[in-house]
Amino acid sequence: MTAANEENEQKIIDKLLGIDDFHELTVRVDDTDLMQVVHANKYLNYFDDGFISFTSKLNKDCGALHKQGIVFPVRKIEVEYINSATFGDNILIHTRVIKVGNTSITLAMNCYKNTKSKDTLLVKGIIVRLIMNINGKKLIKITDFFSNII
Amino acid sequence: MTAANEENEQKIIDKLLGIDDFHELTVRVDDTDLMQVVHANKYLNYFDDGFISFTSKLNKDCGALHKQGIVFPVRKIEVEYINSATFGDNILIHTRVIKVGNTSITLAMNCYKNTKSKDTLLVKGIIVRLIMNINGKKLIKITDFFSNII
Amino acid sequence: MTAANEENEQKIIDKLLGIDDFHELTVRVDDTDLMQVVHANKYLNYFDDGFISFTSKLNKDCGALHKQGIVFPVRKIEVEYINSATFGDNILIHTRVIKVGNTSITLAMNCYKNTKSKDTLLVKGIIVRLIMNINGKKLIKITDFFSNII
Amino acid sequence: MTAANEENEQKIIDKLLGIDDFHELTVRVDDTDLMQVVHANKYLNYFDDGFISFTSKLNKDCGALHKQGIVFPVRKIEVEYINSATFGDNILIHTRVIKVGNTSITLAMNCYKNTKSKDTLLVKGIIVRLIMNINGKKLIKITDFFSNII
Repeated sequence: MTAANEENEQKIIDKLLGIDDFHELTVRVDDTDLMQVVHANKYLNYFDDGFISFTSKLNKDCGALHKQGIVFPVRKIEVEYINSATFGDNILIHTRVIKVGNTSITLAMNCYKNTKSKDTLLVKGIIVRLIMNINGKKLIKITDFFSNII
Repeated sequence: MTAANEENEQKIIDKLLGIDDFHELTVRVDDTDLMQVVHANKYLNYFDDGFISFTSKLNKDCGALHKQGIVFPVRKIEVEYINSATFGDNILIHTRVIKVGNTSITLAMNCYKNTKSKDTLLVKGIIVRLIMNINGKKLIKITDFFSNII
Repeated sequence: MTAANEENEQKIIDKLLGIDDFHELTVRVDDTDLMQVVHANKYLNYFDDGFISFTSKLNKDCGALHKQGIVFPVRKIEVEYINSATFGDNILIHTRVIKVGNTSITLAMNCYKNTKSKDTLLVKGIIVRLIMNINGKKLIKITDFFSNII
Repeated sequence: MTAANEENEQKIIDKLLGIDDFHELTVRVDDTDLMQVVHANKYLNYFDDGFISFTSKLNKDCGALHKQGIVFPVRKIEVEYINSATFGDNILIHTRVIKVGNTSITLAMNCYKNTKSKDTLLVKGIIVRLIMNINGKKLIKITDFFSNII
């Protein structure tokens, strides 16, 4: 890799590390279970939404990315469940990149219950994702992907 | 029932029959299946969202209704699947009341793929819902419910 | 179509109309919502399971069918919700073919809560499915499909 | 705590640590997404199933536990996604207890793709669960819970 390439790559990494994305959604009835709070698995959907919101900051049309065969499989998650939310609650998902690997990107994703006066931390997640071309089943280098869409 | 009550009830029914609600959402990755389009069951979630949007038109805080123990169980559905949608597509749900029974409300809910130039009809649904107080497991008369929240 | 073909086709239709399939499953926590009963959309998953069980009666390896690109999209559903089930309940799905069209098959699917002493009817469904080759996005004639797998 | 109590508690802990539970299920169409493999969130359902299978080893009727208001909320998960599974695949969930805390139980749950000749490790999970009485929203001491149901 030339020095120019390396510098360019570092710029993209720095840009990714500098983004704070906030995404809001409302809890569905079907997100809850008989405990009358959001089921643990639904936060993974919220993390999907947060990641789409994050990439949409850089490139508006995620649907278009998909039509090109780009997908973002999950490699690893760590989730701590702290408080619970229920139907009708507004959820705020705060997404930050905390590590850019060669073919993986690590995100810190916190979900908050968003009320007028204050926010309650619901869930803290660390998610490692890959970026893949589904057609060739080929991993894409993270900085290559983002240099193309930024 | 007095004539005044009957007239009031008819007014609520007329009001309900006169509402057109439009609600938008974006298809999640998890809404799709291996056919790469939205799975049939997910439209029932979209219908839930459309109904919440509809009631929110009359009363903003559906979460508050839930905290009072109000739920909206489905009694009957008829759904025709016409076209398919995929991840990232914008869905427009058009909700109208077509019948107000004593303890049931019948909604016509059409889902469209919402693109700049035109809308494509995806799914046509007829949904019959009840309104229930979950604590007493007691059905609520439709016009009583809406006269309280309007 | 020759008379021999027609006769063969009628035999397949008669065979399909003569099958009664029974499939059992147990309700998951995540199948329930805050009403503490199974959410309306989950019965569509149960209908999927029932259909797979039905086709497995004719051909054991549905996974293999999928690997050949065969999918079974839903064209239409009518579901009546009569009683409710909750976490841990045993569900019995009774599947019968009620109509064999050219490129669609109509199934009557009843879900029962299965207890030792008696069964309670939970849900009555009519489901119209197509059979499609996902690769060519081509509808397959119903009798052709079943004559190949029987 | 008396010495007798302590000894009894240790016996329960030892019993729990000694159990290996194996649970099988088949991947649904709706478990997959447009990547044509099981979506990351669905493994949390499989973990729910595995935990129910585990507790059923000790006490057959989990539905009955639920009717008494016993629930098993997730406190923490760590999941590593190694290989992928698709529609029709047989999944084997291997559950072991690796730690018994005062009010939490930590389980190691591995999911395998179960084929005739060999098993492929799909997902490795560590799940920390609480045991709670939903009515009083009160945590139950782990050894108390299991001494009652064993």
